[in-house]
Amino acid sequence: MGTVNDILQRADGDFEDSIGRLTDYLKIPSISADPAYAEACLQAADWTRSLLRDMGFETRLLSTPAHPVVIGRYEPDHMDSDTLHILCYGHYDVQPPDPIELWKTPPFEPSRRKGDDGIERIYARGACDDKGQLMTILEASRAWLRTRSHLPCKITVLIEGDEESDCSHLDAFLAANRRDLTADVALVCDTSMWDARTPAITTRLRGCVMDELTIWGPRVDLHSGGYGSAAANPIHVLTGILAELRDRNGRIRIPGFYRNVRKASPAILKQWKKLKFDEREFLASVGLATPKGEKGFSVLEQIWVRPTCEVNGISGGYAGEGGKTVIPAKASAKLSFRLVAGQDPQAIRNAFRSFVSKRVPKDCKVSFGNYGGDAPAVEIPEDNVFLRKAAAALRDEWGREAVFRGSGGSVPIVGSFERVLGMHSIMAGFSLGDDAAHSPNEKYDLRSYRGGIRSWIRIFDAVTNPS
Amino acid sequence: MGTVNDILQRADGDFEDSIGRLTDYLKIPSISADPAYAEACLQAADWTRSLLRDMGFETRLLSTPAHPVVIGRYEPDHMDSDTLHILCYGHYDVQPPDPIELWKTPPFEPSRRKGDDGIERIYARGACDDKGQLMTILEASRAWLRTRSHLPCKITVLIEGDEESDCSHLDAFLAANRRDLTADVALVCDTSMWDARTPAITTRLRGCVMDELTIWGPRVDLHSGGYGSAAANPIHVLTGILAELRDRNGRIRIPGFYRNVRKASPAILKQWKKLKFDEREFLASVGLATPKGEKGFSVLEQIWVRPTCEVNGISGGYAGEGGKTVIPAKASAKLSFRLVAGQDPQAIRNAFRSFVSKRVPKDCKVSFGNYGGDAPAVEIPEDNVFLRKAAAALRDEWGREAVFRGSGGSVPIVGSFERVLGMHSIMAGFSLGDDAAHSPNEKYDLRSYRGGIRSWIRIFDAVTNPS
Repeated sequence: MGTVNDILQRADGDFEDSIGRLTDYLKIPSISADPAYAEACLQAADWTRSLLRDMGFETRLLSTPAHPVVIGRYEPDHMDSDTLHILCYGHYDVQPPDPIELWKTPPFEPSRRKGDDGIERIYARGACDDKGQLMTILEASRAWLRTRSHLPCKITVLIEGDEESDCSHLDAFLAANRRDLTADVALVCDTSMWDARTPAITTRLRGCVMDELTIWGPRVDLHSGGYGSAAANPIHVLTGILAELRDRNGRIRIPGFYRNVRKASPAILKQWKKLKFDEREFLASVGLATPKGEKGFSVLEQIWVRPTCEVNGISGGYAGEGGKTVIPAKASAKLSFRLVAGQDPQAIRNAFRSFVSKRVPKDCKVSFGNYGGDAPAVEIPEDNVFLRKAAAALRDEWGREAVFRGSGGSVPIVGSFERVLGMHSIMAGFSLGDDAAHSPNEKYDLRSYRGGIRSWIRIFDAVTNPS
Repeated sequence: MGTVNDILQRADGDFEDSIGRLTDYLKIPSISADPAYAEACLQAADWTRSLLRDMGFETRLLSTPAHPVVIGRYEPDHMDSDTLHILCYGHYDVQPPDPIELWKTPPFEPSRRKGDDGIERIYARGACDDKGQLMTILEASRAWLRTRSHLPCKITVLIEGDEESDCSHLDAFLAANRRDLTADVALVCDTSMWDARTPAITTRLRGCVMDELTIWGPRVDLHSGGYGSAAANPIHVLTGILAELRDRNGRIRIPGFYRNVRKASPAILKQWKKLKFDEREFLASVGLATPKGEKGFSVLEQIWVRPTCEVNGISGGYAGEGGKTVIPAKASAKLSFRLVAGQDPQAIRNAFRSFVSKRVPKDCKVSFGNYGGDAPAVEIPEDNVFLRKAAAALRDEWGREAVFRGSGGSVPIVGSFERVLGMHSIMAGFSLGDDAAHSPNEKYDLRSYRGGIRSWIRIFDAVTNPS
C-alpha cells in the first residue's frame, strides 16, 4: 500500500522527470486568443490527453465551439456508490507573449535558471499560468498511482483550452456533460500562495465582464489639416468617454455600478489585518507607489472586495513610425470590469453600454463587441468541509496556517461550477506574486512546483479520510 | 512685340500640343515615397529639365539627400539691376496610386475623356497634383517666349521631387542656394480654385506642430485582475489628459494657446460670407453633419483661421483579436497642432508639454517624441502688391473676383520660402474639389489646364507692369 510519506518520497524521487514533462508541455505555443495558434492548441490538448492516458486515466477529447476539452476519468477498483468524486481542473492554453521583445529567453523555449537566491525557476509562457500549476495535480496523481496502484477516490480531470480567451461556451459544455462532470468538489490549481512560505486557499474571486467599444466618425480617415477641428474625431470622443468612467476618488461613475455590493465583514477585515500586507511593497514590486483605487479602502479591499473597471487596450488612427496627420474613421478600446459578490454581469454590461451610448455625439456611432464570457464573482463559505481539510493538509506540508485569501482576478470556471453544476471549488495554488503571469518572462519556482505536487498528494489523502 | 491678347491666342493655338506634353509627363511613374521608383523620379526630373532647356532656360539638376531638384533660369536681355525676379515652384513627384484596383484606367497611362457635362478631362496620377498644375506656369512661359521672344522679367523655376514624401531637407537646400533662389516673389501652383468658375488665391496656410507623448506606469504589463484599481493604468492617465485638452465649447485648454491669435478682419469675413460655403455639404461628403470646432466660429473660420489640436493616433495595451486583461506598462498618443498666424511652434510645443507634465500623477512618467518639423502658419498680407496684381489678372481671365481663401493644411515649401528666403508666395491654383488628388482616378479638367495657362500669362504681365 504505502503511506502518504511513501507517496511524497516517490514524488520527490521522480521530480526531475516531472520537470522534464513540464518542459515539454511549455514548448507548445497554445495561445488560445490567436487563431494562428489553433494547431498548437490542439497539440497541447493531445499532449495533455496522452499524459493522462499513460497514467491510466480513461481519456476523451471533447470538441467545443472553440478549443477542445480534455477529459480524464479514473474510477478506483471496487468503487462504492458513495465513493468520493473529485473534479480536477486546469487549462492548457496560455496568454499571448507580447511584448515579445521584453523576454530574456524565448517564451516557448523553456529556460531553467538558478537565481542569486539559490532558487531554481523555469521561465516560459504558461510556466505558472496554468501549465505549471495544473501539472502539480497531475504529478500528484502520478505519485499516488505509482505508489498505491490506485487513486484514493473517483477523479475526473477537466483541462480546457479557452481560459485565456473566450470560455463563454463552457457553461453549455458543463450543462451538456453534467452527469459526468458533477463531483462532490472541484480542485482548482490556478491561484497563488500568500507568500513564498505561506500557503493560501482562495475563497473569493472577483467576477469579470469584458467589453469592447468602437467609436465611428467620418466615413474615411480624413486629412487633419483640411478637416481639423471641424470634423468629429473618434479618438477625442473615445478618450472623453473613458475619462468620465471614474471620479476623482477612484469611484466608477456608471449608474448602479455599486448596487448590492457589500463591504467585507469585520471578522474578515480583522483576519486580513493580521496578514500585515505591505501595500507599498506590493506596488513597489511593479514600479509603483500610490494606490489608485477607491479612497477609503485598503489595497487588499480594493483588489479583493471592491469592483473596478480597467481599460486593457486602446487603438485608433496612426500608430506607426513618425507622424500621419489623419482624423481616423474610428477608435476602439477594450475594457474589463472586475465584479464582486452581488453584482450581476449582464446588468453591469448593460449599464456600461448605456453610460457610453448616452455620451456619443450625434455625428458618431458606437458599436460594442462582446468577446468574453460573463463571470459573476465567487465566494466559498468558510465552513465548507473540503476547505477545512485542504487547509489542514496545506498546513502539514508548509508548516504554516493557510490563509483564506481573495483574488482580484477571475477563474471563470469556478463560477460555472457553482452555477451549472452546483459544486464548490477548492482553489489552492502555488504561484507567487512575482511569477509574471500574463507578462514577459513568466516563471514558476521549482519550489512551487515541488511543494504543489506534495500539497495535492496530502490534499487527496485529507479529503478522502473521514472527518 | 505682341500684346497680352496675342500671347493668350498663341497659348490657345498651341493648346493641343500642351496637352500632348502633359500626357508624356504623366506617363512617368515618379512616386517619390517608394524607393522602387527612384529611376522614374530621375526620369521625371530629366524630362522637366529638357522641357525648360528647349524653351531657352539655363538648367541644372541639383542633388539633395533624396530626389534631385530641377532649376531653370531665365534672365531677359538687357536686364536692369532692378528687374523683377520671380521664383516659380512646382513638384514633379506624385503620390503612390494605391488602391490601384479602384482606377478605371491605369494611373500612368493618361486617359483623355469627355464627361456627360461636355468637359474634357485627363485622368492619371499627378494629373492635377502637381504635374498638370506646374505645367500651367511652364506653358505660360512658353507662350510668352514664342510670342515676345523673351520673358517679362527674370524667372527662376524650382521643381522638386519630394513634396509627396519627406521634403525636410529643403530648408537646408534653400539656405545653400539662397543667392540664386531668393526672388521678389514666388509663384506656387499647387492649390485649388474656389469652385469651377471662381478663381482663388490661397493667402493663409495653417502651420503644423507634431508631437507624441507616452505615459509610463507599471514596470511591466500587469494582470488587471490582480492589480485592477490599485495600480495606476497608463491608458486611464492618457485618456484623462487628452480629454482635458478641449473644453465643452471646443476651445483648447492649454494655457497661452490662443496668445497672439487674431480674428479674421471684417473685410475678409464679409468676403467669406459671400462665398455661401455649404457647411452641411462639406461635412456630409465625409459622412458627418455637425461642426465640432470652436463654438462661435463658422466651419471656414474653424479650418482657416482658428488653431486646433487633433489626436492622430492612440495606442496602448492589447489591440489584437479578443481580449487580454492587462494593465499596460505604457500608452501613447500622436498629436498634431494646426497653427495660425501669430503662434510660435516652439512655444506651442512647450505649452503642450507643460500642460501634460502637470497632469501626470506621481506614479507615472511621461516622455515626448518630436518627429516632425515645426511649421509656422503663413499669412500673405492682403495689401501685398503681387497679391493685388495677381488677383486682378485672375479676375480678367475668369470674369469673377478671386477669392482670398485659407487652407487648413500646409504647403511646407511656402513656409520655407518665408523663413529661409524671406519671400512671400502667391498661391494660385486651378485644381477642383473633385480632382481626387491623392486618390484613385485623379484628374485635371482641360478647362483648368487651359484657364491656368492663360491665368499665368496674365499674371506675368500684371506683376511686371508698374502699379
